[in-house]
Amino acid sequence: MKWERKDILGIKELSVEEIQLILDTAESFLEVSTREIKKVPTLRGKTIINFFVEASTRTRTSFEIAGKRLSADTINISASTSSLVKGETLADTAKNLEAMNPDAIVIRHSCAGTPHMLARLVKQSIINAGDGAHEHPSQALLDMMTIRSRKGSLSGLNVSIVGDIAHSRVARSNIYGLNKMGARVTVAGPATMIPRDIRELGVKVSFKMDEALLDADVVMMLRIQTEREKQSIFPSLREYSTFYGLNKENIKKAKEDVLVMHPGPVNRGVEISPEIADGSHSVIMEQVTNGVAVRMALLYLLTGAAA
Amino acid sequence: MKWERKDILGIKELSVEEIQLILDTAESFLEVSTREIKKVPTLRGKTIINFFVEASTRTRTSFEIAGKRLSADTINISASTSSLVKGETLADTAKNLEAMNPDAIVIRHSCAGTPHMLARLVKQSIINAGDGAHEHPSQALLDMMTIRSRKGSLSGLNVSIVGDIAHSRVARSNIYGLNKMGARVTVAGPATMIPRDIRELGVKVSFKMDEALLDADVVMMLRIQTEREKQSIFPSLREYSTFYGLNKENIKKAKEDVLVMHPGPVNRGVEISPEIADGSHSVIMEQVTNGVAVRMALLYLLTGAAA
Amino acid sequence: MKWERKDILGIKELSVEEIQLILDTAESFLEVSTREIKKVPTLRGKTIINFFVEASTRTRTSFEIAGKRLSADTINISASTSSLVKGETLADTAKNLEAMNPDAIVIRHSCAGTPHMLARLVKQSIINAGDGAHEHPSQALLDMMTIRSRKGSLSGLNVSIVGDIAHSRVARSNIYGLNKMGARVTVAGPATMIPRDIRELGVKVSFKMDEALLDADVVMMLRIQTEREKQSIFPSLREYSTFYGLNKENIKKAKEDVLVMHPGPVNRGVEISPEIADGSHSVIMEQVTNGVAVRMALLYLLTGAAA
Repeated sequence: MKWERKDILGIKELSVEEIQLILDTAESFLEVSTREIKKVPTLRGKTIINFFVEASTRTRTSFEIAGKRLSADTINISASTSSLVKGETLADTAKNLEAMNPDAIVIRHSCAGTPHMLARLVKQSIINAGDGAHEHPSQALLDMMTIRSRKGSLSGLNVSIVGDIAHSRVARSNIYGLNKMGARVTVAGPATMIPRDIRELGVKVSFKMDEALLDADVVMMLRIQTEREKQSIFPSLREYSTFYGLNKENIKKAKEDVLVMHPGPVNRGVEISPEIADGSHSVIMEQVTNGVAVRMALLYLLTGAAA
Repeated sequence: MKWERKDILGIKELSVEEIQLILDTAESFLEVSTREIKKVPTLRGKTIINFFVEASTRTRTSFEIAGKRLSADTINISASTSSLVKGETLADTAKNLEAMNPDAIVIRHSCAGTPHMLARLVKQSIINAGDGAHEHPSQALLDMMTIRSRKGSLSGLNVSIVGDIAHSRVARSNIYGLNKMGARVTVAGPATMIPRDIRELGVKVSFKMDEALLDADVVMMLRIQTEREKQSIFPSLREYSTFYGLNKENIKKAKEDVLVMHPGPVNRGVEISPEIADGSHSVIMEQVTNGVAVRMALLYLLTGAAA
Repeated sequence: MKWERKDILGIKELSVEEIQLILDTAESFLEVSTREIKKVPTLRGKTIINFFVEASTRTRTSFEIAGKRLSADTINISASTSSLVKGETLADTAKNLEAMNPDAIVIRHSCAGTPHMLARLVKQSIINAGDGAHEHPSQALLDMMTIRSRKGSLSGLNVSIVGDIAHSRVARSNIYGLNKMGARVTVAGPATMIPRDIRELGVKVSFKMDEALLDADVVMMLRIQTEREKQSIFPSLREYSTFYGLNKENIKKAKEDVLVMHPGPVNRGVEISPEIADGSHSVIMEQVTNGVAVRMALLYLLTGAAA
């Protein structure tokens, strides 16, 4: 299969073949990061702009390392230093970046749909690094890569996603991807955190943690984004933790070889107990390592394919 | 002609030959940014410090991309992370940067004359990336490059610069440069925005937009810098736009093949109407593209000439 | 001697042989920064993360330039863009960085002991770029390099360190290092700035400037960290300057060829008079130049030794 797509805006529009090609490419890049010389000349002379209008360390760093390990030039632009403060429209900022002839623009923005607008406006490849509560495709891809490498295949697995499903772009991208790849997805959390129409995406809904964990091959714990939720959608962190936190007791409901995942940053003792986060089921650090490889694959497929 | 000058502090002191050499060099670099591999080894092993004490995205990004496409190492220092907050004098900061042996320091500062002080203090090349309301030479050079490439020559052209002439380093640098290159410059705007002694720079002054646009080959619209002008120097944005905004009606006064320019970021609907900003006369995006090439030329001439 | 140590956390634990190897290596790198092409391929394909949780320009810039001149990829992470603001523990941030497979992490943090915690947690090399009032080993190494290159040897020299000894990581690291290398260290300052138990580190204490300067081969003036000392530990800057500032009068007490040093940023007219800071005894700018070389040596020894 040859890569044809200009942008990575979401998992929703990707085909099974495209997802498989990304994961296969990422696996081949995984080895680069373990070499003595962690660098291949693949994207030499390419310019990657990391345009982060919403603050981020891990995703920006992961994309920056991915670009550099492929020998691309990487440029960071953050909201605080951006012209946006001078009242320029985002469309004009994008046209300006386009005129400097980068090869790809990685964008994170608090408004859903921003990467899609940019993709229509500029000729370069756009990679969505998280847009509001909409999608975070590179996160879902690294999650799928991690599961696939541990379980051999995604098909037929029971995957439970627990937390604030309504506000989670990580959950949304994973639901799209896992469904496509043949997994059975259950979402769980308090009723205030589960959108009414989520079943239309082809997932089971549970409001009870024990039920959600039953026979799970994979449990993805979402971060409680205390900085995002201004109005309290649950009574207290303590109560949330009691009913929906993953701990060494309730994990016994899941399969013996269950994988525990988390997109980070972890709120220890809130959504996940420390002994589970650091325990033998946890693949949280593998997710981070795979994240660099997935982003190398995306940059390579989007900007290197023409070479 | 061989390049002899250590610094680029302003257009005022450049000779016609120097400006031509910069524009010629920039044109030869323009092609690099359109290659599959956008990189030449010209400045490998050179260190360029982008020292931005006043916030900027486009100019800093343009210099950073220019440096990287020449294979230089680029280091960004911004005011918020700078020692300046610890009370060090700017002279001491400059001496410190000098001691780390960079090859060029690109500086933006809100105080006019800062780059000149640095140029006297340190042995490395200083490039003024904008000093207060004084000069912004790389902007004027990219503007002249854009006009020259479209019109063949600058000589004999009618160029009108419209807006807050008093506070605009872009206007000042362009007036110096365009005059040297044989263009006829008219500045226009409300009386509060036109310095009394501006005629001494060899420009015509107009307070009426229609008069300023008459027979213009080029119209440069300046940004209304709402963030800079604390005290209101005009009654309202709406009134400014009515009297001095460029739109599809008043542009008819200019020549049929008039070029519309803007240094960005654009306040759409204030100094320029959206259909003009995006219309067939606009070369605003070409300016941005040429900006990278001009900055490559400056870095090359200042730091690469000795090689 | 072969380098065996994984981390550089402080001078306290380094042997004389290790310090000598670092200084010898730094001297060999000093020449790279004066070349036409200031770059060697030594660390190509290595990833260095500069993780600065406490603001810094000079040290971060020095490490970034050092990394780039060795052809390493450098990634900057600062506190304001860091996940720390999202409530992640520093340990989790460190584990995340580890999972991206860098080769070294340079950390500055306002809490003493932070680099030591990181060094235990992650497999990569940690370099302490300043931890609270504890240690700042690369600063002491560049200071020792500067003295050694001027005086031939550190052994037997009289070195006086003047200022806020209690809050100075620079003083602490230099005391450890200078003692090991055979210098005689005197610390001086007002009683409020001298810890009671400082004599246990093997230094002489003086509360009188003239006494501290007497027969000094080297005088290190510490910065009065006005931003750090919330509560006033001395009556006024003027009084401090009168009693403990270095000036053209009291410097006569020192040896004729005394070296004047300062870690920067300098408060001119407070701890040191301008004519002394810029005078013939001052090696302050040499310290900055040597800083890049010392950091190249540290990065090389820690991450390149295995190659």
